[in-house]
Amino acid sequence: MRGGRLVLDEFDTPAPAMGQVLAEVLACGICGSDLHTLEHTDDFAKMSSTAAAVADFPTETFDPGADVVMGHEFCARILDVGDNTANCKPGDTVVSIPIVMDAGGVHPVGYSARYPGAYSEQVVLSDMLCMKVPNGLDPAEAALTEPMAVGLHAVEMSRITPGHGALVIGCGPVGLAVTAALRLAGVETIVGSDFSSARRALAATMGATEVVDPSEEPPMEAWRRLGGNRELVIFEAVGVPGMLAEVTRSAPRGTQVVVAGVCMQTDSFRPADAIARELNYQFVLGYDPGQFGRTLHRSAVGQIDVAPMVPGRVGLAGVAAAFEDLRDPDRHAKILVVP
Amino acid sequence: MRGGRLVLDEFDTPAPAMGQVLAEVLACGICGSDLHTLEHTDDFAKMSSTAAAVADFPTETFDPGADVVMGHEFCARILDVGDNTANCKPGDTVVSIPIVMDAGGVHPVGYSARYPGAYSEQVVLSDMLCMKVPNGLDPAEAALTEPMAVGLHAVEMSRITPGHGALVIGCGPVGLAVTAALRLAGVETIVGSDFSSARRALAATMGATEVVDPSEEPPMEAWRRLGGNRELVIFEAVGVPGMLAEVTRSAPRGTQVVVAGVCMQTDSFRPADAIARELNYQFVLGYDPGQFGRTLHRSAVGQIDVAPMVPGRVGLAGVAAAFEDLRDPDRHAKILVVP
Repeated sequence: MRGGRLVLDEFDTPAPAMGQVLAEVLACGICGSDLHTLEHTDDFAKMSSTAAAVADFPTETFDPGADVVMGHEFCARILDVGDNTANCKPGDTVVSIPIVMDAGGVHPVGYSARYPGAYSEQVVLSDMLCMKVPNGLDPAEAALTEPMAVGLHAVEMSRITPGHGALVIGCGPVGLAVTAALRLAGVETIVGSDFSSARRALAATMGATEVVDPSEEPPMEAWRRLGGNRELVIFEAVGVPGMLAEVTRSAPRGTQVVVAGVCMQTDSFRPADAIARELNYQFVLGYDPGQFGRTLHRSAVGQIDVAPMVPGRVGLAGVAAAFEDLRDPDRHAKILVVP
Repeated sequence: MRGGRLVLDEFDTPAPAMGQVLAEVLACGICGSDLHTLEHTDDFAKMSSTAAAVADFPTETFDPGADVVMGHEFCARILDVGDNTANCKPGDTVVSIPIVMDAGGVHPVGYSARYPGAYSEQVVLSDMLCMKVPNGLDPAEAALTEPMAVGLHAVEMSRITPGHGALVIGCGPVGLAVTAALRLAGVETIVGSDFSSARRALAATMGATEVVDPSEEPPMEAWRRLGGNRELVIFEAVGVPGMLAEVTRSAPRGTQVVVAGVCMQTDSFRPADAIARELNYQFVLGYDPGQFGRTLHRSAVGQIDVAPMVPGRVGLAGVAAAFEDLRDPDRHAKILVVP
């Protein structure tokens, strides 16, 4: 990403410093955040700065003026290891939460001006953050550990139990990851809502017990028809202005709304609508390393099958076109970059 | 309230129907909601309609065109009882959650066109909802059971424990009730914030361990100075547009925000600010009968002393002027109507 556009260029091979490893990228998923970053660069920079300000460790913030190699949903094979490494050895196939550490602090892989992201041939990672991919899991599926962990985190941050019902609004990658995590949490009624028939079909594959088309029936009406008297947790996985207001004025009383869609613009709603319903909103972001590891395990043992999510694959030269293709939700939920 | 103004008028004595009682009003607190209703009648009507739509029972909604006798924070003495009553007898001093039931459903005392509220000499109540005032508690203090129960409800809906810290933004009646409930919940660090020195002094009396003037120091900076590393629950008890945005962009990561101030206008904020901090918002309204009863008990046994909150008293002819006086937060937190 250079000056607001995607370009293909060559750089020197990065060298792993103490505690770091050099790895060959095997596959990297394209994330909605990357599309958003390209289009609303300043909004993303502001959010990055906010997140860094409240982070536990000094964190590099996104610099919209710098060259940035994006790509943070990756699986890679270790090529070389730096000093003071004990976890990885050359030849290991690994995934990692997308941060790399050095003496200067934490750098977000894929949004850093210092370290390349994984829309590239090689990345530098932190040895101790790498997790070996078990059970011969296909690197293409292992790469999706990151977006699937977002769903597990959202579900674990919620108050949901098997006795609740769930309504997942938006069946893009975040909504699909939430759906898969809800199914594994034992939630019996999972209603997925999306305008795209392709995404609705994917939601059913990932565990939705019912899918609805909001152009035919408002999701909350569908919920009332399908959910019985269960207590409801709504997962908002669209992240555009107006969604919060829509949910707020139609949710049943006492509902929890987990806001997993990332809306970076200003949004408005009527607090009185939330007060009259005593709604609870839980805003969520990312995952912790434990959730990342548990998600990898779930894929490796077959509890989650992410293969249906990634029909499309491109090389590095195809990344810019893939970004365009992903704007049509009926074509792809996710595209993998295979350098 | 007639045509958007307060007028003094005479009506026939209401008659208690089956299950109802007639009572003489001894004292009634003036609530901020009443001031708001007079000024933003349509906003209140909309909220009333929303609340009725999600209520458990058929509920009368506020009719801005009707004559309404307001007043819902009352203590009264039983004058007469209707058929099928078993709880109250003439002479009993009682409080009640401000609803009265009949075959048509639930009517909110103080916002009903069918039953008078307690800015009047006599009210009709539901026998089984009345609670006898114990221990000879002063009716002026018993009348404040209602607003104090709002504070207990807000605290019990929150995730606060003694190990958390609390920041109470706004030390009007809602903030003071929250403060008293926090103190009784064993919360060790309770920071109260209000522009009014009179209200800050009241907050200290009700249990705030520290009070801050937001014109001298932003409340969140004061919290960082005073709260140490405690996990924080913020109680937003102001309820004007902009408060949510201010809290959202300055709260520490992982904070819960309990929205106890009633903002009826549209409000806006940046969801990304809430996402980056993984904030939780709990919107709250009212209380349940158990919380109402526990609050009465706390006042009656001296765990809460509400006397400092009610220095001002007026008769029925003084209600309109009292509404005006309450706009100056340095003069009164609360005024009691004594018919």
